[in-house]
Formats: sequence, structure tokens, C-alpha cells
Amino acid sequence: MASLEDLTTPALVVDGDTLEHNLTTMATALPGARCRPHIKAHKTTALAHRQRAIGHVGFTCATAREIIGLARAGLGDDLLLANEVLDSEQLAALAGVDGRVTIAVDSEVTADAAADAGIRECLVDVNVGMPRCGCLPEDAGRIADHARARGLDVRGVMGYEGHLVDMVDRAAREEQTAECMAHLARAHLAVGGDVISVGGTGTYDCNHFGTEIQAGSYALMDTHYARLPDLPFRRALFVLATVISVNQREGFAVANCGLKSLGMDHGTPEIDGATVWYCSDEHTVFSVGGELPNVGDRLRVWPAHIDPTIAYHEHMHVLVGEDVAETWTVDLRGW
Amino acid sequence: MASLEDLTTPALVVDGDTLEHNLTTMATALPGARCRPHIKAHKTTALAHRQRAIGHVGFTCATAREIIGLARAGLGDDLLLANEVLDSEQLAALAGVDGRVTIAVDSEVTADAAADAGIRECLVDVNVGMPRCGCLPEDAGRIADHARARGLDVRGVMGYEGHLVDMVDRAAREEQTAECMAHLARAHLAVGGDVISVGGTGTYDCNHFGTEIQAGSYALMDTHYARLPDLPFRRALFVLATVISVNQREGFAVANCGLKSLGMDHGTPEIDGATVWYCSDEHTVFSVGGELPNVGDRLRVWPAHIDPTIAYHEHMHVLVGEDVAETWTVDLRGW
Repeated sequence: MASLEDLTTPALVVDGDTLEHNLTTMATALPGARCRPHIKAHKTTALAHRQRAIGHVGFTCATAREIIGLARAGLGDDLLLANEVLDSEQLAALAGVDGRVTIAVDSEVTADAAADAGIRECLVDVNVGMPRCGCLPEDAGRIADHARARGLDVRGVMGYEGHLVDMVDRAAREEQTAECMAHLARAHLAVGGDVISVGGTGTYDCNHFGTEIQAGSYALMDTHYARLPDLPFRRALFVLATVISVNQREGFAVANCGLKSLGMDHGTPEIDGATVWYCSDEHTVFSVGGELPNVGDRLRVWPAHIDPTIAYHEHMHVLVGEDVAETWTVDLRGW
Repeated sequence: MASLEDLTTPALVVDGDTLEHNLTTMATALPGARCRPHIKAHKTTALAHRQRAIGHVGFTCATAREIIGLARAGLGDDLLLANEVLDSEQLAALAGVDGRVTIAVDSEVTADAAADAGIRECLVDVNVGMPRCGCLPEDAGRIADHARARGLDVRGVMGYEGHLVDMVDRAAREEQTAECMAHLARAHLAVGGDVISVGGTGTYDCNHFGTEIQAGSYALMDTHYARLPDLPFRRALFVLATVISVNQREGFAVANCGLKSLGMDHGTPEIDGATVWYCSDEHTVFSVGGELPNVGDRLRVWPAHIDPTIAYHEHMHVLVGEDVAETWTVDLRGW
């Protein structure tokens, strides 16, 4: 069995025990269909299988390719594309998968596109305060009526309080989530249906209104979510890198991972015991309080945001102890 | 022939005429071996073939995979891996390619690793002021001696003034580049060899010391480099996206490209005539001065930094007029 030392760097590595802790913690808090894991966070069918095995039947996706891949892998019991799609080829492919596909719509145009392509089920996506997709709450009933008139089965509503999920103060997060959900409740009254699909990792136990939580980051976590002191999930994913250069006079070292192995929208990654100066395409430059590492040393670089980090990698290696127990293909990248 | 309207979005699109302008401009200013195009910027063998066809014989690479891919494609006349590598498997693969491979070394350890793997040629990488790889100028001679004692042919020196290439003030850029090159000149005196490999797109005509310029961004450009008023290169690359949601009350619209189709280290992308609010995984939210676009409209999203943008995409489509004349595979991604 390979060890960490055998991996060519940069390499995406999952700590298997921590992943297990995170999956178990979520499945205990939100068992079965109460959690609809978001696949966009990891884009990896093998990890979705783990989430299915622990009881989560349905999945949330952000792209057509994620839906199609999961269905091909036999994970198509209840797939939600939590995003608006207008491309007729993609919609036709989604309508043809071997599985149950529900799609978000937030306008007559997106409902028409879904109906025209033969999609059978939808949720009405409602804006609950974050400036992104989702209709106004007062328009939700009209859009649901339109969708039903076009032959779609409207299963309920969706609303994502994404502007709150990373709020460090839990009391404020919980209170403001409740305010957002009041908008969604109003929309749901007009729309009807059994499904109220909401939330993310940061509100998994703050959102008391949804019937299901669309949490993705909880499985692997990142330094941005790790700032929330109340979350029981732990960082399970790092980029393994090699120190390729050390500058003793200036007091810094260089690891061989950078902008093409780390999503940067939430800032630079972290290295335990070090200060990261900056990243360039294939480099992370850092200093440490004490003695600098040696050329050839390996270290763990913790990404600030896992979603765009993982999307750069072809594989993730699963570590159990010091051994690489499995290597998973990040097979759901692209669109 | 497909048109822009036929592409599934998000899609990476190259304006063919602008690319041609950029390639011709560079090949006129720095013909043949005076420019050693940096492949990390585009990671696309088909585009490297265009750079070869216009006269550039050698290429700069940042990863083993870029070198190996170019050699396999018959572009291995003179390949420089402008980065330190310690992985013995990667080094052995590099030593075995059908082509000429030169590798950067900046320490005894990296020179030893190259020699042990059967690499035949190297450059001594010298730090000229940017905190990243490269030995101190005063250590360059010692490292060259060590490399030669280990059987490596030392072709010369390399020094990258990366902290200056995006300086808007041309006079300051040129002056400070000269100061950096004074360090490299000192190192070159001690090292010897014919090659002095330097620079980037921003200093392609400010660096008067190097024998060759490692420019990459010039071919496709981005909004960050486009801030430099003296550069004759024009933005040739955009992400084609579809408007999937419009919020008339709040005055914004949402395009279906985001953190997984755009490198974010240089900030948010630009949309002509619009203000970009932020990006999330699969969304770019923006407002416009006048009337908002319609759901279904397509638009061009200009990346702030092409290198980490292109690394997310499987293909780039080459536009001539309104037609997609070719689709290139971004085949050199990964490590």
C-alpha cells in the first residue's frame, strides 16, 4: 500500500478518519433524507457512495454533469439540480437519465425550458436575501402555477441563505436564518408541495424550517468554515506539497502547490505553524516562527475553500493512518 | 460550423483574430528563440503549435506534465522546466522524453535530484528580488560548480522579475527590471553559459539583459495585464456565460459561470458595461447602468487571471467572426 511519501505532489489528500467523523456526525444530526448532501463540494462519485451508504438517499447538484454522473453510478434515487438551466441539450440529457431528477426554476422562462425538454419535476427557487438566483417570494405562486400549467410537478420550494452560512456568531446566524425562512414560508404557502430545501453546512442545525438541508462542505471542511466555533465538523482535506526551495537569508520557504491546486476566493491557504505570504501558479511562499523546513520536506496545505480547490484535481487520495487506502477520481468536474 | 450560440455554457472562448494579433506582435518584437513562450498560461498543445509555427522553437513549462505533453506532440526541440522538481518519478519521466529538457535548479539538493534521475541540462535559477524560488546571486557559482561536478551541463541562468511584470508605470518597471538584472548579471558571471532566461509579458520589451523572455500571458491576456497601458497585446480570452436569473427589484442579474470557471486570485472578472458584484461556485452576479439583460442572453466574462482560469476548463473554442472554427483540448492540466 502506498504511503504519503509515495505520492507525487501536489496531491489532494483526505484524512479518512476525519471524513468518517464528519459523515457520522451529520448522519446522526440529520439522518436519511433530512440531509441532501451537495455534490458540488467534492464532485466525486466515490464519496457520494459513502454518503449514500450512511443513509442519505437524495443529492443536491450544481451542474448537469454532476446529476448525470450520479445517475450513471446508481445514485439517482432523488437528484436535485439546485440551479437554473436553460441549455436545451443539457436539459434533454437530464430528462433522459435513469433516475429521478428535480430542477430549480425561478422564472417562467426557466420553467418553460425545463418543460420543453421533458423534465418532469421542479422546485420553485426563492430568493431569501442573498443576491443570486431565486424569484421574489411574492412571485413564487405565479411561477408554480405556470410550471404546473406546463405539466411540471412542483414538489415545493428551495431557498438558500448563503449570505449567512459563514457568519461566525451563531446566535445572529440562527436569528437571521429564521428571518430568511419567513420569506420562504410565505412562498411555500403559495406554492405548496412537500419539499422545503434549504441551508448549508453553516446552518445545518440553525435552520429549523426546511424539510431538508443542502450541506456540502461538512464532509471535508476548509479553513473558512473552520472559523465557525460551533460546527462539529473538522478539516479533512489538504493539499500535500513538497518544499522545493528555502531562502535562509530572507526567511521563507516555497512549497510546490499554488493557484492551480487551490481555490483562492476565500484567500490564501493555511499551513500549520506557518504564515503564508502568497501563492503563485505552482508555488506557496511561507515563513515559520522557528527553523525553516528543509528542501524535500513535505507539508500539509489547508485550503480556504474546498469547492474550487477540488475542481482543479483529478484525484483525491484517502489516508488511513499513514497509508493511502484508496484513490478516488474527481469524476464530476466540468459542466 | 458551430456558432457561439451553439456552445454549452460556461465555455472558454478565444477570439481568433485577437490571438493572431498577439502572436504576430510578439513574434515581430521577439522573433524565434528570443521568446520562449510559457506554456503554463494556456496548457494547450494546439496553441503551442501555433507559437511554434510563428517561429518560437523553445518553450517554458511549469510542470512535468507540460514538458511531457509538448515532447509527445513533437514540440520537444528545447523545453525548459522553469521550476524546481524533487520527485524522482517525475524527474525520471522528464529524463526519458523524446526531446531536449533543461531544468531549473537553485540548490545542491535540486541539482542532485536532477542528476540522479539522468537529467542532462540545467539552468541555475537565481532570486532577483521576488520572494520565491531561486538561489542568492552569490551562491549561483557554487551551485553551478556542484551541478557540473554531478555531470549536468549548466546552460546558464534564469531569473524572474515577477514582482515587476504587472507594474503599471512603465518607467519604474523598466528601471527596477534593470536593477534586478544587475543581480542576475553577477550570478551569470559566476555561472557562465549561453542562456539568460528572464521576464514575462509585462517586461517583454523592458528587459534588455536576457537572451530570451519567458512570456506566457501575451497570447491570450487578461484584465490584470490589460491595466498596463503600454502593452500592445489585447484580451483574447473570455468565458461565455448565459444569464439564468434576473432580479428586477434589486437590480442585478446572474450569469452561469463562477469560481469553478474563473481563477480568482486577481479578483473578480469583468463584464463590459457591468459591475460585477461577486462570484460563487457556478454564478457571477452583476448589475448594469441601464436595462438589465434578459434570462437566456449570453455574455462575455473577462477573467482577471488567465492561468488559473484555463486550468479549470477541458476545452477552449476558437472563434473566427461568429463561428467556432476549432475546439482545442486543454490537454496539459494537472502535474
